[in-house]
Amino acid sequence: MKFTCPLPIQGSDRVLLGHGSGGTLSAALLRDIVMPAYTNPLLARMEDQATLQINGASVAFTTDSFVVKPLFFPGGDIGSLAVHGTVNDLAMGGAQPLALSVAMILEEGFPIEDLRHIAQSIGAAASACGVSVVTGDTKVVEKGSGDGIFLNTSGIGLVPPGLNLSAANARPGDAVILSGSLGDHGIAILARREGLSLESTIESDSAPLHSLVSAILAVTTEIRCMRDPTRGGLASTLNEIAAQSRVGITIQETSVPVREDVRGVCELLGLDPLYVANEGKMVAILPPEHADAVLAAMRAHPLGRGAAIVGTVTSTEPGLVLQRTAFGTRRVVMMLAGDQLPRIC
Amino acid sequence: MKFTCPLPIQGSDRVLLGHGSGGTLSAALLRDIVMPAYTNPLLARMEDQATLQINGASVAFTTDSFVVKPLFFPGGDIGSLAVHGTVNDLAMGGAQPLALSVAMILEEGFPIEDLRHIAQSIGAAASACGVSVVTGDTKVVEKGSGDGIFLNTSGIGLVPPGLNLSAANARPGDAVILSGSLGDHGIAILARREGLSLESTIESDSAPLHSLVSAILAVTTEIRCMRDPTRGGLASTLNEIAAQSRVGITIQETSVPVREDVRGVCELLGLDPLYVANEGKMVAILPPEHADAVLAAMRAHPLGRGAAIVGTVTSTEPGLVLQRTAFGTRRVVMMLAGDQLPRIC
Repeated sequence: MKFTCPLPIQGSDRVLLGHGSGGTLSAALLRDIVMPAYTNPLLARMEDQATLQINGASVAFTTDSFVVKPLFFPGGDIGSLAVHGTVNDLAMGGAQPLALSVAMILEEGFPIEDLRHIAQSIGAAASACGVSVVTGDTKVVEKGSGDGIFLNTSGIGLVPPGLNLSAANARPGDAVILSGSLGDHGIAILARREGLSLESTIESDSAPLHSLVSAILAVTTEIRCMRDPTRGGLASTLNEIAAQSRVGITIQETSVPVREDVRGVCELLGLDPLYVANEGKMVAILPPEHADAVLAAMRAHPLGRGAAIVGTVTSTEPGLVLQRTAFGTRRVVMMLAGDQLPRIC
Repeated sequence: MKFTCPLPIQGSDRVLLGHGSGGTLSAALLRDIVMPAYTNPLLARMEDQATLQINGASVAFTTDSFVVKPLFFPGGDIGSLAVHGTVNDLAMGGAQPLALSVAMILEEGFPIEDLRHIAQSIGAAASACGVSVVTGDTKVVEKGSGDGIFLNTSGIGLVPPGLNLSAANARPGDAVILSGSLGDHGIAILARREGLSLESTIESDSAPLHSLVSAILAVTTEIRCMRDPTRGGLASTLNEIAAQSRVGITIQETSVPVREDVRGVCELLGLDPLYVANEGKMVAILPPEHADAVLAAMRAHPLGRGAAIVGTVTSTEPGLVLQRTAFGTRRVVMMLAGDQLPRIC
């Protein structure tokens, strides 16, 4: 049994919100419309970043646009999110960030003070990551043709020699380590957007993961793959890895960390934390003999304190992600299908 | 007399269309809001691209978002324009393009067929430039929160050793060479957008300039500066160079090539071709002893057939661009002030 994407034109010849979800509709749009137009070996690898060889150096290159709504939320804003998102896409390729670009699409009438706040947030987040914003662009569209501000951050990073990370590298027996609790970012955005009254404020986990990656690589460079489970959540990330590596992945429900307050909101709204977006969490897949040492190194890092081994890679049912539930049963964890939470990043 | 920018908050505490014009309001927004937030030496150079040293290689990095309206126009579409725009920003730094990223912000309801057409146009344009789209991103916003499709293309290129190009390098006595006629892109967009009935269809000049740059650099690497006069037109580009190099620039009105049909529309609408956007033209500033050889090389290239020496760099009135008119008088050519033609790229 192998995961297959529906055709995007099934049911619609127009773009749907779900085409931006990071789930099956996004995958189908990429597979059927975008990839055939640009096809080349680097893009075909479908990693979060492309790695180019320049003068003997491995240079990672990535891009992300940000349309998060609201622009300001507990734990961050569109500016810090854009920096963290692109730093993390570089970091998941093992790269230390070298330089960022920032392009802004502003809607006529957007408050200059909000723009100043966001620019300062970008600058502060980049500075905290030790990376410079070296180039940029600003466009303005008429009132009603945008939504305040959209950002694009692209980034360049340097990959240390000897790394070979890919979502196609997972092997049966590998351990699956998650760096901390799931769903904080998605629920923080949802709660602010919908004006939910909660007992405590749930903050986004938005954070840059490059130093956590350094801590992991200091233990061993024998890592198969690293990914940050953003849009589509852990479920979609693991499905991508299972499909590309042609392996099965089994996770233990009781091992997957979810904060009590996040779990509460998820239950209230009928959401599964496995599908909710994160912006400061990562998954590492690695040979089992390194799992304990990597786990210890992650737990010693401020952004990996809640790290846990949540599953294993299997040879049975390639392409399929299974969850062993708290009751001992098994269920299939599909890729996100629709548009659970639009404009989460 | 030195060019100074008005404060963006003069008259408005909100973003205006003119903040995206490429003229004085854009410059003020950059100077007062954006640059202070990210400040670093590379960004402070204010070139169209940043050049990083990686393992002994000079790597150019640039970004541009595209919000052109309409999406399809005579001579191109938003897809080819996005590829050419970023290839040209690399080329103006002397770089040959290595890799592009493409990020799309789609509005819910955008026709899938238009998306396919644009993706294919991106792929074809990139392929014609000999550059690969190696990484990408897709976001979707709700109907009414965008305008069909916005693109961002970022790019990486390799700068040959020994080049030192900068808008701060122009020296008195230098020649100013323009690669061809002004205003084709802006007038093509305007005519299509406003439904002007013209005797002939005016096509955008959208084209990739990296091979024209190669032809120039094959003659001499002693080039001071290259720029493509896009938003804000030749007038704004020369003002930027004059300000950054602290020199004067004098251009001859009779030497500046403008197509008859473009001039006709400009006269009809009260536009000055010096301010109208181009997407396949470049200015080179270089020592006078190389001017004839570079001009000949440009004219031998398909994209430089209309090249002309249009002016000289002077030591008088630093920061000021002057035009000698057909009647022998002089006039000051200011930077574009307002929002002549919004959403031109």
